[in-house]
Amino acid sequence: MTHNPESLETIISLCKHRMDAVLDQVLPDAAAPPQALHEAMRHSALSGGKYMRPLLVYCAGQACGVPMARLDAAACAVELIHCYSLIHDDLPAMDDDDLRRGRPTCHIAYGEAMAILAGDALQALAFHVLAHENDSLNAQQRLRMMDTLAYASGSLGMAGGQAIDMLSVGQALDVDELENMHTRKTGALIQASILLGGLAADPIDEDVLRHLGGFGRCIGLAFQIRDDILDVEAETETLGKPQGSDEGANKPTYPSLLGLEGAHEKLREVHDKALHYLGAMGPKADFLRQVAEYIVGRKY
Amino acid sequence: MTHNPESLETIISLCKHRMDAVLDQVLPDAAAPPQALHEAMRHSALSGGKYMRPLLVYCAGQACGVPMARLDAAACAVELIHCYSLIHDDLPAMDDDDLRRGRPTCHIAYGEAMAILAGDALQALAFHVLAHENDSLNAQQRLRMMDTLAYASGSLGMAGGQAIDMLSVGQALDVDELENMHTRKTGALIQASILLGGLAADPIDEDVLRHLGGFGRCIGLAFQIRDDILDVEAETETLGKPQGSDEGANKPTYPSLLGLEGAHEKLREVHDKALHYLGAMGPKADFLRQVAEYIVGRKY
Repeated sequence: MTHNPESLETIISLCKHRMDAVLDQVLPDAAAPPQALHEAMRHSALSGGKYMRPLLVYCAGQACGVPMARLDAAACAVELIHCYSLIHDDLPAMDDDDLRRGRPTCHIAYGEAMAILAGDALQALAFHVLAHENDSLNAQQRLRMMDTLAYASGSLGMAGGQAIDMLSVGQALDVDELENMHTRKTGALIQASILLGGLAADPIDEDVLRHLGGFGRCIGLAFQIRDDILDVEAETETLGKPQGSDEGANKPTYPSLLGLEGAHEKLREVHDKALHYLGAMGPKADFLRQVAEYIVGRKY
Repeated sequence: MTHNPESLETIISLCKHRMDAVLDQVLPDAAAPPQALHEAMRHSALSGGKYMRPLLVYCAGQACGVPMARLDAAACAVELIHCYSLIHDDLPAMDDDDLRRGRPTCHIAYGEAMAILAGDALQALAFHVLAHENDSLNAQQRLRMMDTLAYASGSLGMAGGQAIDMLSVGQALDVDELENMHTRKTGALIQASILLGGLAADPIDEDVLRHLGGFGRCIGLAFQIRDDILDVEAETETLGKPQGSDEGANKPTYPSLLGLEGAHEKLREVHDKALHYLGAMGPKADFLRQVAEYIVGRKY
C-alpha cells in the first residue's frame, strides 16, 4: 500500500500518519530530564502542522521510485528544522508572536530560555536523525542529504533569509530583493525537501536531481507569493479592504510591490516554470505536479 | 612537521594556527549578504578562543596516529558548536552576559535577533563542514562523527545541560545532580571532541574508542571542577574572601557542595580515573595525558 499510493490525498494522509509516528519516536520522551525542555520540543514539533515539507520529500521520492519507508528519516529531518525555525522566529527578539497554529508559542508556554534551547536541540536532532545508523539509506546518500540540509538551513539559506527579513523591516525592497529574501527564508528548505527525496534514490540520478532542484526553487517561491496573496485576500474578505498583517508590519510583499493582479500573474509564471522543470520526468512526476497545484491553489 | 609534533606546546601552537585559518575559510565572508549576520558569526567564532575542544580533537587523533590535516574538519565542527552555544548562553533570556573574552557579546554588538540567528547558523555550519565532500575522511567516519556530535549537542547533551542549569537556579542540587548537569552542559562536547579524534582513525579501533570515551567523560568533569575551583580561588585572591560569581548567582558549585578541599580531592580522583582509561594505550597517548594535566592544573 505504501509503495503505490493512488492519489495525492493518499500520500498526504500517509505522510501525516508516518510523521506523527516518526516524530513521536525520535523526540525524547517528555518525562526524560530535562522535562521542561523535552516538553517544549514536543509542544512545537507535535502541534498538528501541515507537514508540507515532509510531503515534498515523499512526493519527490515517489517520483524517483523510492518507497516511503526509505524517506522517513529525511522527511522527519526537514520537519524538525522547520519546527526549530518557527520557535526561534516567534521569539520576542524576532517576530514576537504569541500564537502559532492556535496554541501558545513555545516561549509563551515554556519561557524564552527553554524556547531558544528547544530550537537548538531540534536542529541537532534533525542532523542526528540523518546521521544515525539506519538500514534504509547508504552512507553516501545520508551525507549528501546532510550537506544539502545544512547548507539550506544556514546563513546562506534559511537563517540568512530570516536575517534579511529582520534587517529589512521598514526598508524599501524591490522585487529582486524580496525574491532573494524569500528564496532563502522559506525557499531554501522547500527546495532541500524536494532534493532530499531525489537523494534517497539508489543510484542517485544527477539529471533528475537538477530538474528537482529547479522545480523546488520555483515552488518555494510560489509558496511565498501565494502566502502573500492569501494574506491580502483574507484580510480583504474580513475587513472589506486590502490590509494584510505583513503590510501592517511595514513588510514588503508581492501584492504591495506588484499589486494583487501582478502578484497573481507572477504566481502563474513561477508555477509554469516549476512545471517546465518536470517536463523530462514524464508521468512519474504527476504527484509533484499535483503538489505544485495544491501549493498554488491553497486557501490557507 | 605537522605529523610528528614534539611537544604539547607544539600541538597547541599548530592547533591555533590551523583553526584560525580553517575557521576563516569556512565562515562566509563578512561582506557577503546578509552582512550583519556574517559579521556576527565571525565576531564570535574568531574572537581569540583557547580552542580547547579542537586541541582535544588533535591530541586524540594524534594518539590514534591520525595526521593533523585529517582532523581539521572535526576540530572546526566542535569549535563552531562551542561558539554557537556561547552566543546563545550569553543571551538576556539565558545568562545575560555583556562581555565575553573581553569583548561585547554577540547580542550586545549585533542585537538579539542577529545573535540568535548567528548561533543557529553556526550550528548548521558545523554539520555542513562535516557533511561536505572532502578527501581526508571516508563516508562512514564522517557519519559517525556527525552522529556523535549531534547527540552531544542536543537535548540529551549540551542543550539539555544548559536547560538543567537554567532550571536549577535557586534550587538545591546534590553532587550527583550537579555532576549530571555538567556532564551534559560542558562534558558532552568535550567527550565528543575526544571521540571525533578517535573516529578519524582508519580503520576505527572500537576498543580505543571506548578508552577515549571514558577518558573524555572524566576530563570533561575535571574541566568543570577546575573551573569552579578557579572561580573561588580567583575571587578569594582579589577580595580576600571566597565569593565566586557562581555562588553570587546562587548556583551550586563543587566548592559550595564539597568545600574547597573536597573539590580539590574530587578533581584528583577524576584525574586519576581519566588516566586509568588511557592505561592500555601506552606512550602514544602521552599528549592526551599532558592535556589532562593542563586541564587539571590550568590557572585561567
